Amino acid sequence: MELMEVIKGRRSIRKYRPDPVPDEVLQKVFEGVRWAPSWANTQCWEVIVVKDAKVKSELATTLNKMNPALSSMTGAPVVLALCGKKGVSGLHKSRTFTVEGDWLLFDTGIAIQNLCLTAYSLGLGTVIIGSFDHKKAQEILGVPQNVEVVAMTPLGYPAAEGMTPKRKEISEFVFQEKYRG
Amino acid sequence: MELMEVIKGRRSIRKYRPDPVPDEVLQKVFEGVRWAPSWANTQCWEVIVVKDAKVKSELATTLNKMNPALSSMTGAPVVLALCGKKGVSGLHKSRTFTVEGDWLLFDTGIAIQNLCLTAYSLGLGTVIIGSFDHKKAQEILGVPQNVEVVAMTPLGYPAAEGMTPKRKEISEFVFQEKYRG
Repeated sequence: MELMEVIKGRRSIRKYRPDPVPDEVLQKVFEGVRWAPSWANTQCWEVIVVKDAKVKSELATTLNKMNPALSSMTGAPVVLALCGKKGVSGLHKSRTFTVEGDWLLFDTGIAIQNLCLTAYSLGLGTVIIGSFDHKKAQEILGVPQNVEVVAMTPLGYPAAEGMTPKRKEISEFVFQEKYRG
Repeated sequence: MELMEVIKGRRSIRKYRPDPVPDEVLQKVFEGVRWAPSWANTQCWEVIVVKDAKVKSELATTLNKMNPALSSMTGAPVVLALCGKKGVSGLHKSRTFTVEGDWLLFDTGIAIQNLCLTAYSLGLGTVIIGSFDHKKAQEILGVPQNVEVVAMTPLGYPAAEGMTPKRKEISEFVFQEKYRG
Protein backbone atom coordinates (compact mmCIF):
# COMPACT_ATOMS: atom_id res chain seq x y z
CA MET A 1 0.00 0.00 0.00
CA GLU A 2 1.02 3.58 -0.65
CA LEU A 3 2.30 5.47 2.39
CA MET A 4 -0.31 8.24 2.47
CA GLU A 5 -3.09 5.75 1.92
CA VAL A 6 -1.84 3.88 5.02
CA ILE A 7 -1.32 7.03 7.12
CA LYS A 8 -4.77 8.40 6.29
CA GLY A 9 -6.62 5.10 6.31
CA ARG A 10 -5.44 3.54 9.57
CA ARG A 11 -8.11 3.67 12.28
CA SER A 12 -8.34 2.51 15.89
CA ILE A 13 -10.10 -0.86 15.78
CA ARG A 14 -12.04 -2.09 18.81
CA LYS A 15 -13.88 -5.10 17.33
CA TYR A 16 -11.95 -8.09 16.02
CA ARG A 17 -12.62 -11.38 14.27
CA PRO A 18 -11.25 -14.35 16.23
CA ASP A 19 -9.22 -15.62 13.22
CA PRO A 20 -5.58 -16.14 14.13
CA VAL A 21 -2.81 -13.96 12.69
CA PRO A 22 -0.36 -16.20 10.79
CA ASP A 23 3.19 -16.13 12.14
CA GLU A 24 4.62 -14.89 8.83
CA VAL A 25 2.25 -11.91 9.00
CA LEU A 26 3.32 -11.18 12.59
CA GLN A 27 6.94 -11.24 11.44
CA LYS A 28 6.16 -8.58 8.83
CA VAL A 29 4.63 -6.38 11.52
CA PHE A 30 7.78 -6.72 13.63
CA GLU A 31 9.93 -5.98 10.59
CA GLY A 32 8.16 -2.60 10.52
CA VAL A 33 9.04 -2.03 14.19
CA ARG A 34 12.60 -3.16 13.57
CA TRP A 35 13.27 -0.33 11.12
CA ALA A 36 12.02 2.47 13.37
CA PRO A 37 14.64 5.15 14.01
CA SER A 38 15.76 5.65 17.60
CA TRP A 39 18.02 7.69 19.85
CA ALA A 40 21.59 6.92 18.71
CA ASN A 41 20.13 3.73 17.23
CA THR A 42 19.62 2.33 20.75
CA GLN A 43 16.37 0.51 19.79
CA CYS A 44 15.03 0.47 23.36
CA TRP A 45 11.72 -1.18 22.40
CA GLU A 46 10.67 -4.74 23.13
CA VAL A 47 7.40 -6.47 22.25
CA ILE A 48 5.63 -9.27 24.09
CA VAL A 49 3.23 -11.31 21.93
CA VAL A 50 0.32 -12.63 23.96
CA LYS A 51 -1.98 -15.24 22.40
CA ASP A 52 -2.86 -17.24 25.51
CA ALA A 53 -6.53 -16.56 26.34
CA LYS A 54 -5.87 -16.64 30.09
CA VAL A 55 -3.06 -14.08 29.88
CA LYS A 56 -5.15 -11.83 27.62
CA SER A 57 -7.96 -11.96 30.17
CA GLU A 58 -5.54 -11.09 32.97
CA LEU A 59 -4.18 -8.16 30.95
CA ALA A 60 -7.76 -7.00 30.29
CA THR A 61 -8.23 -6.60 34.06
CA THR A 62 -5.52 -3.91 34.04
CA LEU A 63 -7.82 -1.63 32.00
CA ASN A 64 -10.45 0.62 33.46
CA LYS A 65 -13.89 -0.99 33.06
CA MET A 66 -15.04 2.05 31.08
CA ASN A 67 -12.23 1.75 28.50
CA PRO A 68 -13.87 1.37 25.06
CA ALA A 69 -11.02 -0.96 24.04
CA LEU A 70 -11.68 -3.39 26.93
CA SER A 71 -13.48 -6.14 25.01
CA SER A 72 -10.88 -6.07 22.24
CA MET A 73 -8.24 -7.27 24.72
CA THR A 74 -9.93 -10.68 24.80
CA GLY A 75 -11.74 -10.53 21.44
CA ALA A 76 -8.59 -10.14 19.35
CA PRO A 77 -6.43 -13.23 18.71
CA VAL A 78 -3.27 -11.38 19.78
CA VAL A 79 -2.36 -8.67 22.28
CA LEU A 80 0.98 -6.95 21.87
CA ALA A 81 2.63 -5.31 24.89
CA LEU A 82 5.13 -2.67 23.84
CA CYS A 83 7.91 -2.22 26.37
CA GLY A 84 10.76 0.27 26.64
CA LYS A 85 14.08 -0.38 28.35
CA LYS A 86 14.88 2.39 30.85
CA GLY A 87 18.18 4.22 30.95
CA VAL A 88 19.02 3.54 27.31
CA SER A 89 17.35 6.19 25.13
CA GLY A 90 18.06 9.89 25.69
CA LEU A 91 21.31 9.22 27.54
CA HIS A 92 24.97 9.67 26.80
CA LYS A 93 27.48 8.40 29.35
CA SER A 94 24.66 8.02 31.89
CA ARG A 95 23.62 11.68 31.58
CA THR A 96 20.21 12.52 30.15
CA PHE A 97 20.13 15.00 27.31
CA THR A 98 16.46 15.56 26.50
CA VAL A 99 13.64 17.72 27.75
CA GLU A 100 12.06 14.82 29.61
CA GLY A 101 15.11 12.83 30.71
CA ASP A 102 14.61 9.25 29.56
CA TRP A 103 13.51 9.35 25.93
CA LEU A 104 11.93 5.88 25.87
CA LEU A 105 8.42 7.23 25.53
CA PHE A 106 9.37 9.11 22.36
CA ASP A 107 11.19 6.16 20.80
CA THR A 108 8.43 3.70 21.65
CA GLY A 109 5.95 6.21 20.16
CA ILE A 110 7.92 6.09 16.91
CA ALA A 111 8.05 2.29 17.07
CA ILE A 112 4.34 1.81 17.69
CA GLN A 113 3.47 4.02 14.75
CA ASN A 114 5.56 1.78 12.48
CA LEU A 115 3.76 -1.16 14.07
CA CYS A 116 0.27 0.30 13.50
CA LEU A 117 1.00 1.39 9.93
CA THR A 118 2.55 -1.93 8.97
CA ALA A 119 -0.33 -3.85 10.58
CA TYR A 120 -2.89 -1.77 8.69
CA SER A 121 -1.09 -2.34 5.39
CA LEU A 122 -1.46 -6.09 6.07
CA GLY A 123 -5.20 -5.79 6.76
CA LEU A 124 -4.79 -5.90 10.56
CA GLY A 125 -6.38 -3.64 13.15
CA THR A 126 -4.76 -2.04 16.20
CA VAL A 127 -5.78 0.35 18.96
CA ILE A 128 -3.10 1.93 21.11
CA ILE A 129 -3.88 1.58 24.81
CA GLY A 130 -1.81 3.72 27.18
CA SER A 131 -4.20 3.85 30.10
CA PHE A 132 -3.94 0.74 32.28
CA ASP A 133 -2.43 -0.48 35.53
CA HIS A 134 1.16 -0.67 34.33
CA LYS A 135 2.50 -2.25 37.51
CA LYS A 136 -0.03 -5.07 37.30
CA ALA A 137 0.66 -5.61 33.58
CA GLN A 138 4.35 -5.74 34.39
CA GLU A 139 3.74 -8.49 36.96
CA ILE A 140 1.48 -10.51 34.63
CA LEU A 141 4.10 -10.42 31.87
CA GLY A 142 7.14 -10.94 34.10
CA VAL A 143 8.70 -7.68 33.00
CA PRO A 144 11.74 -6.66 35.11
CA GLN A 145 12.05 -3.31 36.89
CA ASN A 146 14.45 -1.81 34.35
CA VAL A 147 11.80 -2.13 31.62
CA GLU A 148 8.48 -0.32 31.32
CA VAL A 149 5.29 -1.68 29.78
CA VAL A 150 4.46 1.50 27.88
CA ALA A 151 1.43 0.56 25.80
CA MET A 152 -0.63 -2.38 24.61
CA THR A 153 -2.61 -3.05 21.48
CA PRO A 154 -4.87 -5.85 20.39
CA LEU A 155 -3.95 -7.15 16.94
CA GLY A 156 -6.20 -9.01 14.54
CA TYR A 157 -8.50 -8.76 11.57
CA PRO A 158 -11.17 -6.08 12.07
CA ALA A 159 -14.79 -7.16 12.59
CA ALA A 160 -15.99 -3.57 12.22
CA GLU A 161 -14.62 -0.38 10.75
CA GLY A 162 -13.20 2.27 13.05
CA MET A 163 -14.42 5.83 13.31
CA THR A 164 -12.46 8.66 11.71
CA PRO A 165 -12.00 11.27 14.44
CA LYS A 166 -11.86 14.81 13.09
CA ARG A 167 -8.36 16.24 12.74
CA LYS A 168 -7.22 19.81 13.27
CA GLU A 169 -6.52 21.82 10.14
CA ILE A 170 -2.82 22.21 9.35
CA SER A 171 -3.12 25.96 10.01
CA GLU A 172 -4.16 25.16 13.59
CA PHE A 173 -0.91 23.35 14.49
CA VAL A 174 1.74 24.71 12.10
CA PHE A 175 3.29 28.11 12.74
CA GLN A 176 5.85 30.16 10.78
CA GLU A 177 9.17 31.21 12.34
CA LYS A 178 7.75 31.71 15.86
CA TYR A 179 5.16 30.04 18.04
CA ARG A 180 1.75 31.03 16.63
CA GLY A 181 3.68 32.93 13.91
CA MET B 1 5.90 5.01 -2.41
CA GLU B 2 5.05 1.70 -0.81
CA LEU B 3 4.91 1.71 2.99
CA MET B 4 7.65 -0.86 3.65
CA GLU B 5 9.92 0.77 1.09
CA VAL B 6 9.52 4.04 3.03
CA ILE B 7 9.95 2.46 6.47
CA LYS B 8 13.08 0.57 5.45
CA GLY B 9 14.55 3.25 3.20
CA ARG B 10 14.31 6.33 5.41
CA ARG B 11 17.68 7.37 6.85
CA SER B 12 18.90 10.18 9.11
CA ILE B 13 20.25 12.86 6.75
CA ARG B 14 22.91 15.28 7.98
CA LYS B 15 23.94 16.96 4.69
CA TYR B 16 21.45 19.02 2.71
CA ARG B 17 21.27 20.88 -0.57
CA PRO B 18 20.31 24.54 -0.06
CA ASP B 19 17.36 24.29 -2.53
CA PRO B 20 14.13 25.50 -0.92
CA VAL B 21 11.25 23.15 -0.13
CA PRO B 22 8.15 24.32 -2.02
CA ASP B 23 5.20 25.24 0.17
CA GLU B 24 2.94 22.63 -1.42
CA VAL B 25 5.50 19.95 -0.50
CA LEU B 26 5.64 21.23 3.08
CA GLN B 27 1.86 21.03 3.24
CA LYS B 28 2.02 17.36 2.24
CA VAL B 29 4.50 16.70 5.06
CA PHE B 30 2.13 18.34 7.56
CA GLU B 31 -0.78 16.34 6.16
CA GLY B 32 1.17 13.26 7.26
CA VAL B 33 1.51 14.71 10.77
CA ARG B 34 -2.14 15.67 10.80
CA TRP B 35 -3.29 12.06 10.47
CA ALA B 36 -1.17 10.69 13.31
CA PRO B 37 -3.22 8.94 15.99
CA SER B 38 -3.13 10.43 19.49
CA TRP B 39 -4.40 10.00 23.04
CA ALA B 40 -8.20 10.41 22.84
CA ASN B 41 -7.56 12.26 19.55
CA THR B 42 -6.11 15.20 21.53
CA GLN B 43 -3.47 15.99 18.83
CA CYS B 44 -1.11 17.72 21.28
CA TRP B 45 1.59 18.36 18.64
CA GLU B 46 2.49 21.71 17.09
CA VAL B 47 5.17 22.46 14.51
CA ILE B 48 7.17 25.65 14.01
CA VAL B 49 8.60 26.08 10.50
CA VAL B 50 11.88 28.00 10.57
CA LYS B 51 13.33 29.24 7.27
CA ASP B 52 14.96 32.48 8.49
CA ALA B 53 18.75 31.98 8.38
CA LYS B 54 19.27 34.02 11.55
CA VAL B 55 16.77 31.95 13.56
CA LYS B 56 18.24 28.69 12.24
CA SER B 57 21.70 29.87 13.37
CA GLU B 58 20.32 30.74 16.80
CA LEU B 59 18.68 27.32 17.08
CA ALA B 60 21.96 25.68 16.03
CA THR B 61 23.60 27.20 19.13
CA THR B 62 21.26 25.12 21.32
CA LEU B 63 23.01 21.94 20.13
CA ASN B 64 26.16 20.52 21.63
CA LYS B 65 29.15 21.40 19.42
CA MET B 66 29.90 17.68 19.03
CA ASN B 67 26.42 16.88 17.67
CA PRO B 68 26.87 15.33 14.21
CA ALA B 69 23.65 17.05 13.07
CA LEU B 70 24.95 20.54 13.97
CA SER B 71 25.84 21.77 10.47
CA SER B 72 22.52 20.53 9.07
CA MET B 73 20.67 23.04 11.27
CA THR B 74 22.00 25.87 9.08
CA GLY B 75 22.71 23.88 5.90
CA ALA B 76 19.11 22.75 5.40
CA PRO B 77 16.60 25.25 3.98
CA VAL B 78 14.09 24.49 6.74
CA VAL B 79 14.22 23.52 10.40
CA LEU B 80 11.09 22.12 11.98
CA ALA B 81 10.60 22.39 15.74
CA LEU B 82 8.15 19.81 17.01
CA CYS B 83 6.32 20.95 20.14
CA GLY B 84 3.94 19.20 22.51
CA LYS B 85 1.26 20.90 24.58
CA LYS B 86 1.52 19.87 28.22
CA GLY B 87 -1.42 18.63 30.25
CA VAL B 88 -3.40 17.44 27.23
CA SER B 89 -2.26 13.92 26.31
CA GLY B 90 -2.44 11.11 28.86
CA LEU B 91 -4.99 12.87 31.01
CA HIS B 92 -8.66 12.45 31.77
CA LYS B 93 -10.35 15.05 33.95
CA SER B 94 -6.91 16.43 34.93
CA ARG B 95 -5.70 13.05 36.21
CA THR B 96 -2.85 11.29 34.44
CA PHE B 97 -3.45 7.72 33.39
CA THR B 98 -0.17 6.51 31.90
CA VAL B 99 3.06 5.03 33.14
CA GLU B 100 4.89 8.34 32.65
CA GLY B 101 2.16 10.85 33.47
CA ASP B 102 1.96 13.31 30.57
CA TRP B 103 1.89 11.29 27.36
CA LEU B 104 3.07 14.10 25.07
CA LEU B 105 6.42 12.45 24.40
CA PHE B 106 4.70 9.31 23.10
CA ASP B 107 2.24 11.22 20.91
CA THR B 108 4.91 13.52 19.49
CA GLY B 109 7.00 10.40 18.79
CA ILE B 110 4.12 9.03 16.73
CA ALA B 111 3.72 12.38 14.97
CA ILE B 112 7.39 12.78 14.09
CA GLN B 113 7.49 9.32 12.57
CA ASN B 114 4.62 10.26 10.26
CA LEU B 115 6.56 13.43 9.48
CA CYS B 116 9.82 11.60 8.69
CA LEU B 117 8.13 8.91 6.60
CA THR B 118 6.08 11.41 4.60
CA ALA B 119 9.12 13.62 4.05
CA TYR B 120 11.15 10.66 2.80
CA SER B 121 8.38 9.62 0.41
CA LEU B 122 8.61 13.15 -1.08
CA GLY B 123 12.39 12.94 -1.50
CA LEU B 124 13.16 14.99 1.64
CA GLY B 125 15.66 14.22 4.37
CA THR B 126 15.21 14.55 8.14
CA VAL B 127 17.24 13.80 11.26
CA ILE B 128 15.49 13.77 14.61
CA ILE B 129 17.34 15.88 17.19
CA GLY B 130 16.30 15.42 20.80
CA SER B 131 19.49 16.58 22.49
CA PHE B 132 19.64 20.38 22.73
CA ASP B 133 19.10 23.21 25.19
CA HIS B 134 15.33 23.07 25.25
CA LYS B 135 14.89 26.17 27.42
CA LYS B 136 16.97 28.25 25.03
CA ALA B 137 15.13 26.89 21.97
CA GLN B 138 11.87 27.73 23.71
CA GLU B 139 12.99 31.34 24.18
CA ILE B 140 14.23 31.70 20.59
CA LEU B 141 10.92 30.44 19.23
CA GLY B 142 8.69 32.28 21.70
CA VAL B 143 7.15 29.05 22.95
CA PRO B 144 5.01 29.51 26.09
CA GLN B 145 5.56 27.57 29.32
CA ASN B 146 2.63 25.21 28.77
CA VAL B 147 4.26 23.87 25.61
CA GLU B 148 7.49 21.88 25.26
CA VAL B 149 9.90 21.98 22.35
CA VAL B 150 10.39 18.22 22.18
CA ALA B 151 12.53 17.71 19.09
CA MET B 152 13.86 19.46 16.01
CA THR B 153 14.69 18.27 12.54
CA PRO B 154 16.29 19.93 9.54
CA LEU B 155 14.23 19.38 6.39
CA GLY B 156 15.47 19.55 2.82
CA TYR B 157 16.74 17.63 -0.16
CA PRO B 158 19.68 15.36 0.79
CA ALA B 159 23.17 16.23 -0.46
CA ALA B 160 24.51 12.87 0.69
CA GLU B 161 23.02 9.52 1.56
CA GLY B 162 22.61 8.50 5.18
CA MET B 163 24.17 5.49 6.83
CA THR B 164 22.07 2.42 7.57
CA PRO B 165 22.69 1.59 11.22
CA LYS B 166 22.44 -2.10 11.99
CA ARG B 167 19.17 -3.21 13.49
CA LYS B 168 18.53 -5.91 16.09
CA GLU B 169 17.08 -9.15 14.82
CA ILE B 170 13.36 -9.57 15.52
CA SER B 171 14.17 -12.47 17.87
CA GLU B 172 16.20 -10.06 20.02
CA PHE B 173 13.24 -7.77 20.83
CA VAL B 174 10.11 -9.92 20.40
CA PHE B 175 9.12 -12.37 23.13
CA GLN B 176 6.27 -14.90 23.38
CA GLU B 177 3.69 -14.71 26.19
CA LYS B 178 6.18 -13.48 28.82
CA TYR B 179 9.17 -11.18 28.93
CA ARG B 180 12.04 -13.06 27.25
CA GLY B 181 9.53 -15.88 26.63
